[in-house]
Amino acid sequence: METLSVNRAHGGEQGVYRHASTATGTDMTFSVFVPPHAEGETLPVVWYLSGLTCTHANVTEKGEYRAACAELGLIFVAPDTSPRGPEVPGDPDGAYDFGLGAGFYVDATEEPFAANYRMWTYVTEELPTLLAAYFPADLERQSIMGHSMGGHGALTIGLTFPKRYKAVSAFAPIVAPSRVSWGEKALGGYLGPDRAAWAKHDAVALIEAGARVPDLLIDQGEADVFLAKELRPELLEQACAAAGQKLTLRMQPGYDHSYYFISTFMAGHLAWHAARLKG
Amino acid sequence: METLSVNRAHGGEQGVYRHASTATGTDMTFSVFVPPHAEGETLPVVWYLSGLTCTHANVTEKGEYRAACAELGLIFVAPDTSPRGPEVPGDPDGAYDFGLGAGFYVDATEEPFAANYRMWTYVTEELPTLLAAYFPADLERQSIMGHSMGGHGALTIGLTFPKRYKAVSAFAPIVAPSRVSWGEKALGGYLGPDRAAWAKHDAVALIEAGARVPDLLIDQGEADVFLAKELRPELLEQACAAAGQKLTLRMQPGYDHSYYFISTFMAGHLAWHAARLKG
Repeated sequence: METLSVNRAHGGEQGVYRHASTATGTDMTFSVFVPPHAEGETLPVVWYLSGLTCTHANVTEKGEYRAACAELGLIFVAPDTSPRGPEVPGDPDGAYDFGLGAGFYVDATEEPFAANYRMWTYVTEELPTLLAAYFPADLERQSIMGHSMGGHGALTIGLTFPKRYKAVSAFAPIVAPSRVSWGEKALGGYLGPDRAAWAKHDAVALIEAGARVPDLLIDQGEADVFLAKELRPELLEQACAAAGQKLTLRMQPGYDHSYYFISTFMAGHLAWHAARLKG
Repeated sequence: METLSVNRAHGGEQGVYRHASTATGTDMTFSVFVPPHAEGETLPVVWYLSGLTCTHANVTEKGEYRAACAELGLIFVAPDTSPRGPEVPGDPDGAYDFGLGAGFYVDATEEPFAANYRMWTYVTEELPTLLAAYFPADLERQSIMGHSMGGHGALTIGLTFPKRYKAVSAFAPIVAPSRVSWGEKALGGYLGPDRAAWAKHDAVALIEAGARVPDLLIDQGEADVFLAKELRPELLEQACAAAGQKLTLRMQPGYDHSYYFISTFMAGHLAWHAARLKG
């Protein structure tokens, strides 16, 4: 693992790192904030999965999470959103919503994407192992959150591993990718036309199939331009109501899809995670 | 005045605006955060002056000021650091430390800079007037802070108008531009070789000449690569001690010159300003 930068911030250390990933077959870059802590102490880990077009850098620069993580004693990890590199195939038309910056947190089975687009394995297996090797991370206390496409990732990963992730929350997540155009394009492109393969990467479908977590927290801006067409939180709300899955869905008047929205509610989400990571 | 963007954030509105400046003869862009407030209420204004190479965007994205401004009821204004445009002359060698992005908060008298590089007048006269016309700003309650070159601007403007700005603070400021290479280049380039003209743009020289404010707050990272050669806070410390000027200079171990440093101490500075802006 190579250290690209480390900066003191809020009493801890904000680092950016690169490593050769076996999951993706590429170099991968990620950021980690380690708050102030006692020598030898291990700390709970909050995973933050970013949205379309983002890298680790967006939340690292604009997420306003460090003050809260320092206060609450949380490690904050931000992976990239896809493999990258000259050898990695992207969207055939160069669109922003598939390929580079748009891995959708799945292990692709379709060619030419299957070799590199393995973000599910990368985020749930490879990077946690790396984290525990190099940072004071307690993998018995992990939680997960994300934004938009990363909210989709957080929900599907959290619902798949309810014992591993002690808290699951999202900002403006894609809740039902099988039923919106971003998701249909991505899941079709990575997993092929058989929609049966999509269900385990669709939070609504997972809940309908019986997946459960203790509770879910979601903030969603009412002025988000993607709300009606791509995000559709009402589908999650209906599925949770039908299934008896506890959900706190907070519609936030005036807020859009940007980091101005995310940063506003970040500290609240981190406090909610910290309460569930005690132990 | 043209609105470039407005985003809801922390209960208020973060906007970016452009206007044709009479001071600089160019279009100028700046950002304003207006916190939640009662209809008809006017609010105190904190001016934030940025450092070399920056625009309004750096602090707007990375400064982590909105939560504190929302809590404290402060308007936060971030101007650009120089005039810009195809007609504006820059550094003859294209260097980062003079010309575009490096206005040094002076009114240039040397050609070819005198026509556009009038950041002193822009920040102290034109932009406050514009602000009061379009925002719920109470110009009887202004304060000023800045980073690096902008710390120099905040100190020199604050020391020049001690009644107008109720609080003056800085992150890693250039305190004695007449005595460091960044400052010698800039003040020489904008004001000419006669160093007598530089003194009113040098915080240490101003204090030595009798300028006073009730107190000054400065945070300075000890791992700042510009500390020894360009920033030299010990010169301000000595001048304040000799003059009886109250100064709180906090050397911060491990912190560098970046926004990771600034954002760490931003909320503390804003609370310090808010306490002095009451009334």
